[in-house]
Formats: sequence, structure tokens, C-alpha cells
Amino acid sequence: MGLKKVNKSLVVQKYGGSSVADQEAIEKVAEKVISSARSGQKVVVVVSAMGKSTDELIKLAKEINPEPSEREMDMLVSTGEQVSSSLLAMAIHKRGFDALSFTGPQVGIITDTYHTQAKILKIETDRIKKQLEKGKIIIVAGFQGVSTALEITTLGRGGSDLSAVALAVSLNAQLCEIYTDVEGIYTTDPRKVKSARKLPFIAFDEMLELASSGAQVMHTRAIEVAKKFNLKLHVRSSFSKKEGTIIMEKPPLIEEVIVRGVTLAEDEAKVTLCDVPDRPGIAAFVFDQLAQSGINIDMIVQNVSRRKMTDISFTVDENKLKKTISKTKEISENIGAGRVISNKNIAKISVVGIGMRSHSGVAARCFSVLAKNKINIDMISTSEISISCLVKKESGKKALRILHKEFKLDKKKKRGKR
Amino acid sequence: MGLKKVNKSLVVQKYGGSSVADQEAIEKVAEKVISSARSGQKVVVVVSAMGKSTDELIKLAKEINPEPSEREMDMLVSTGEQVSSSLLAMAIHKRGFDALSFTGPQVGIITDTYHTQAKILKIETDRIKKQLEKGKIIIVAGFQGVSTALEITTLGRGGSDLSAVALAVSLNAQLCEIYTDVEGIYTTDPRKVKSARKLPFIAFDEMLELASSGAQVMHTRAIEVAKKFNLKLHVRSSFSKKEGTIIMEKPPLIEEVIVRGVTLAEDEAKVTLCDVPDRPGIAAFVFDQLAQSGINIDMIVQNVSRRKMTDISFTVDENKLKKTISKTKEISENIGAGRVISNKNIAKISVVGIGMRSHSGVAARCFSVLAKNKINIDMISTSEISISCLVKKESGKKALRILHKEFKLDKKKKRGKR
Repeated sequence: MGLKKVNKSLVVQKYGGSSVADQEAIEKVAEKVISSARSGQKVVVVVSAMGKSTDELIKLAKEINPEPSEREMDMLVSTGEQVSSSLLAMAIHKRGFDALSFTGPQVGIITDTYHTQAKILKIETDRIKKQLEKGKIIIVAGFQGVSTALEITTLGRGGSDLSAVALAVSLNAQLCEIYTDVEGIYTTDPRKVKSARKLPFIAFDEMLELASSGAQVMHTRAIEVAKKFNLKLHVRSSFSKKEGTIIMEKPPLIEEVIVRGVTLAEDEAKVTLCDVPDRPGIAAFVFDQLAQSGINIDMIVQNVSRRKMTDISFTVDENKLKKTISKTKEISENIGAGRVISNKNIAKISVVGIGMRSHSGVAARCFSVLAKNKINIDMISTSEISISCLVKKESGKKALRILHKEFKLDKKKKRGKR
Repeated sequence: MGLKKVNKSLVVQKYGGSSVADQEAIEKVAEKVISSARSGQKVVVVVSAMGKSTDELIKLAKEINPEPSEREMDMLVSTGEQVSSSLLAMAIHKRGFDALSFTGPQVGIITDTYHTQAKILKIETDRIKKQLEKGKIIIVAGFQGVSTALEITTLGRGGSDLSAVALAVSLNAQLCEIYTDVEGIYTTDPRKVKSARKLPFIAFDEMLELASSGAQVMHTRAIEVAKKFNLKLHVRSSFSKKEGTIIMEKPPLIEEVIVRGVTLAEDEAKVTLCDVPDRPGIAAFVFDQLAQSGINIDMIVQNVSRRKMTDISFTVDENKLKKTISKTKEISENIGAGRVISNKNIAKISVVGIGMRSHSGVAARCFSVLAKNKINIDMISTSEISISCLVKKESGKKALRILHKEFKLDKKKKRGKR
């Protein structure tokens, strides 16, 4: 990292679908972009498709073919970002500034060949750099690239964030701004807990835990890449001028913050594979088989075994439950395990904070405050910086409020200087 | 021409915007494509954007910037054909056939750098050929290409026809089918004259005269290319199985047909530049100046001069009248000519047929039948295979009916074998 010269005058800005939903919104984005250009910065803008336009394209496709080929889906949906990026260029032109829009393939975003969920292999930045040097504002259609087989690919969920972060890293930008329809990262979901507070800073690791625990602001993949290359992110609203939340390796005043946020995920289901023979490698086999079927596992709990048998429980996306049960039954027969039970009536509460690394007792405090409020915990899993508990679905929101209050997330703390 | 091997098993089919307007229409196109594939043909399909989707994109652009840059317009509108081509691929997949959609750039349609009206320089057909050999149905987004500067370009009006014809020529196809919302080429516009008849055959030259005289079925550029490479075209309806009209160099039984069709153009205006000094090269100067201002001239008439002065009259698209008058006034001052008069109250009637080459008296017959019906002719111009007359706008439709009847275009003739 220390070897590369950071380009202090260059900023990458990403605007999500709601930020470019219609003419008015696009005009506002143009103003924001120009205001950065006026301040002397070189600007690379990454845009998502307008509002719900991607959903409309998907609907159209499914009407024609309920199981459309992934290659053709990529051809189809990649048009959405091309539309919004050219419109933004026009809005910038109207204000007398020079801008050029590009598709992902045009700016050399090279991916692997996995359609609808391609991974970026490299970015050939020559074309962008040349135009930046000429003083142009560069607009890039997010979410897309061109595969090594010369096919149009898309990057899957959160793809435009990933385009922005990868471009910022490749161009050695000092900062990547993620403009969205919320004002930043909150201690918890403000729609569920009124006293939720916007965080001035958050660490990459905390953000990763929050993102995978139900906070929808940014997708995990983009945060992972930013963390890997130590690229500072600024998540902020495209509808206001307020500062948002800075995501960085080490937020200032980190010692004082033990818990940064709590989240609630209500779209998971629990599956238990009973009476699994306790042989070495058996859990690895189970989860390898599930992974090969494209089933993403979230929490995993395996208790100590009794009489050489154990139960393995895990959670999956509710939508994948049917598929997961059928696959797990297959695995069970294969390894001589017992029956497969599932439960959709669950909610996952997660408490996240890198301060936990050096503070003990956070888990105990969680469990005891939930117990005191008569909320049963069904399953627990922890990482170095997070604690997740499964509770009954109907207790989810209450548990969220209780934990948010318990860790005083509703109280304003002293802020570190930016 | 004799040197290239025609690929008898390959057909290029082009479907216009109304043929892919919605889900149902796209499904029907899929059926048609598959029926050709079933008969053992290799099929390359070129599609336009769905229905009015291009118009909607243009409207969106104009809301944001009344004078959008042509480069960005190409970025924007080229998405329309990408959408319809991927949807058609999905519809074909559903029926168990293998198909791949491609953008213009992906199939190597290389153009010059004139955005919104680019010319095709060459087509690199390797990628298509490779996939055709694998038995795939190829779907190409019409109307678009990639410029030598690696920018997305569009081909202007009639662009998808041009894509289809150019692909058919490059792939040495035996035939290019143009599917549209009419059943073929008619002796005149059936909406204006009830007794209009569909023609089984028409010569390239006749079609060129008809196209530039108001028949909207195909654009001149595509016909010119087909003629140049002697590529047979079949214009037919995507909503029926009926044979349409074959456009070819020498239709069978050509001797018997003197007039193939009559057309009426009601969107032109006449401009007269009075008292032009009769010097060599003066007309060339006038029209060169107009051409440089992007004004397309249709008819031109210059009478014999009296006292070293002459009047030059010409017709232009009504929409360009204001611009034309102002430019012509400028030219007039420049060359010391007189005033500029214009007239929007005109209609152009054209009588077209390659039989005229060997039959005299057609012009006389036109003029006399119009005179007999008290329709004044304001201006006349003729080519080897056509006669055009300007009449008052209110007499246009009547003149059309009279001429259609006079040349017995409403009567069925013996048909040549296909």
C-alpha cells in the first residue's frame, strides 16, 4: 500500500438507484458532481440503474422465460446502468461541464465468466486516465464488466458499490463516496428503532459484520475490497449536504466504543440436521455439499456430541429454505445422519463492535438483558467483534430496542475529528 | 460478385420495432425464427428496439438536456436494441433452441465516428461464424456499431435494416428477410388508396425511387447496399405467413410492367431562389452551400434563363424549411441573386417503374390525366425510371388515386414465378 501514490485530487462517487430515479434526481446528482469538479477534484462517477428499472427488466424477462439464461440476463439488465450514465452526462453537459459516459466493458472492467455474479479480475484504466487528464468528468455504468470471453457480465448484488470501490483502488483515489438514500450508517435500523443514531465513523470490520447481519446500505463484497486496499469510504445521502459515515481501518477514539451497532435480520430460517455421526471432517463435508448447491449459510452451531452423535444447526436465507431442506436430507442419507428439522419463526439479532476485542462481558450482558426481558435465545454464535443470537421472530424488534438501549447507542458520544 | 460463394443455408431476418413491441410479439418472432431454423437454415436475426422504446429514451434525454450530445444519445438509445435482442434470445431458449444475443460492437460492426448517423466501414464476422457453426441462432442488436475510436455509434434512420443487409452481405447470405408491420411493398399507400395492391416483385431501382418518394417501409441506405451487392430482399409481415415482396435486380416479367407504383409525399416544402445570375457553377455553389448546412434537397428544377437570369426551385423537408430559407437568403446575398420565396402548400406525386426506360409517353400520360382532372402541376422533375410532380397539397390524394388507376395498378397482373 505504501508504495502506490494516492491521487489526492481524485474522488470516485457512486450514486445508487434511488439517487438517479428520475429526471429531477439526475439533475441533483449532476449538481453534486459539478460541485466536486469545481472544488478542483477530478471526478469519476459510478451510477446504478434508475430506480426500479432493473426490476422492470427482470420482470419483462421472467414473463418471456421464467428461467432466463444468465448470459442473456446480463445482456438485458446491464442496459439499465448505461441509460442512467448517459443521462447523467447530458445533465452535466447542460451545466457547461465536460463529461463522458462509459459502459463497464468500455473502461476495461475485466471479470471472470460467471454471469450474474462475476468477479472483477482487473481494470484497465488507460482510457479513463487519458480522459481525466483532458479534464473530463468520467461517468461509468456500474454493476457491469466484460468477461475474459468477451461477454457482458454483471457483478451481482451490490455490484455498483463494487465497481466504484474497484475503480477507486485502481485509480489510487483518496476517497470513495457512496451516495445513497440514507444519511449514513446507523447504530441500528432507524425504521425499527427511533432512537437510532448516525455514526460519524465505523471500522471496516464492524461494517462487514453489520452488512452481513442485515444492514442493507452497502454490500459485503465492496467493503471487503475497500478494507483489503485500505480505501476510505464515505457513505452519505445524495439528498442532503450533511456528512455521512466514514468507513475506515481505525476510526478515531476507538477505545471508547465497545458496541458500534445492533442489527436485526428477519429473513432467515433455521435448519437442524439431527444425529450426525461425530467423525472428523463430517461438518466440512456437510457444508461443502451445501456450498456446491449454491446455498449460502449464515450462522452455524454444532453442540458437543453425546454418544458419538451431534446435531448441526445453521441458518439460510428464507427463500432458499425449500432447496436447503431437500439438499440436507440428501446429505443426511449419504452420511447416515438423522432427520432434518426447520424453523422459519426466527429472527437474528447481532451486536457488533471492534471494541469487544478488548472488552469482555459483552456477550454476558446481551444474554442477561434478553433474559431479564423474557426473550429466549435459541442459538448463539460469536465472532471476535460480534455476537449473534436467534430469537423468536415476534421478539425480534423488541430485542433490537433492548440491546440498542443497553449499549447506550441512543446516546451521543464525543466525536473524533475527521 | 461471382467470386463469392453464396451461403444458401443462411438467412438474415430483420424484425422492426412493432414486431417486437411486447412479450406476445417477441414470442411470435421466436416462433418464426425457430421455424426457419427447423427447416435447416442457419439464422441470423437483427432486431430493432421494442415499439416506441427509442422514442421514450429520446424524450427522457430531451427533458434532461434539450440539446443532448450525439455521443451520449448513441450510448442511450443503443440500449433499446440490446434489450429486445436479449429478450428474443430468452424466448427462443424457452422453446428449446440455442440462441445468443450480441450487441453491434460485439459482432464487430465497425463504423466511422459520426455519432447518430454512422456509416458501417466493415463487419468482422469471425465471432458470428464461429457460433453459427456451433448451431446457434444469432441475434444481433440492430442500428448500432462501434466506431474506430471505440465509441458506441448508431446508424441513423433505417439503421436496423442497414445492419441486417450489411450482415447478410458480409456473411454471403442468400436472402435477407425484412419483417415489418405491413405485408410488403404496395403499388401505393393502402391507407390512402383502397385499391392499392401488394407487389410480388420490385426492382432495387424502383424501390429506391419509392423509398425516397415517401414509401416508409425501408430506408434508402439499406436498399442501396443490397443493390450494390445484389442481395435479394424479402419484405414481409411478421404477423402473417403470407409471402411479401421480393426486391431484386431484375424481377421476372419485367417487360409487362411499365409503372410499378405511385407515391405521395406531403411533408415537403418548396423554396425558390429568384433571379439567379446565370453563370457556370452557380447552381453547384448554391447546393453545395445548402448541403454543408446539413440541408437535404429532394427535387431541383431550374428553368431556362431569360436575360442572363434564372430561378432555381427545390424542395426540402418541411421541418427544415425555416433553416433552409435563412440559409438560402444568405446565399442569395452572396451571389447577388434576388428574393427567396417558399411554399408549404404542396404535395409530391411520383410515378415509378423501370419499364419506363423502354416505354415512352408515360410522362405525357401523367400530365394529361392530371390536367383532365383539373389538377395543376407546379413543378416537374424526372429520372430514368420516375416522374415526380408537385401539386397543391389539397389535390395530393386525388392525384394519387387518379394516377394509380390510370396505370391500372389496381388490376392484378400475371405473376412471375418466384
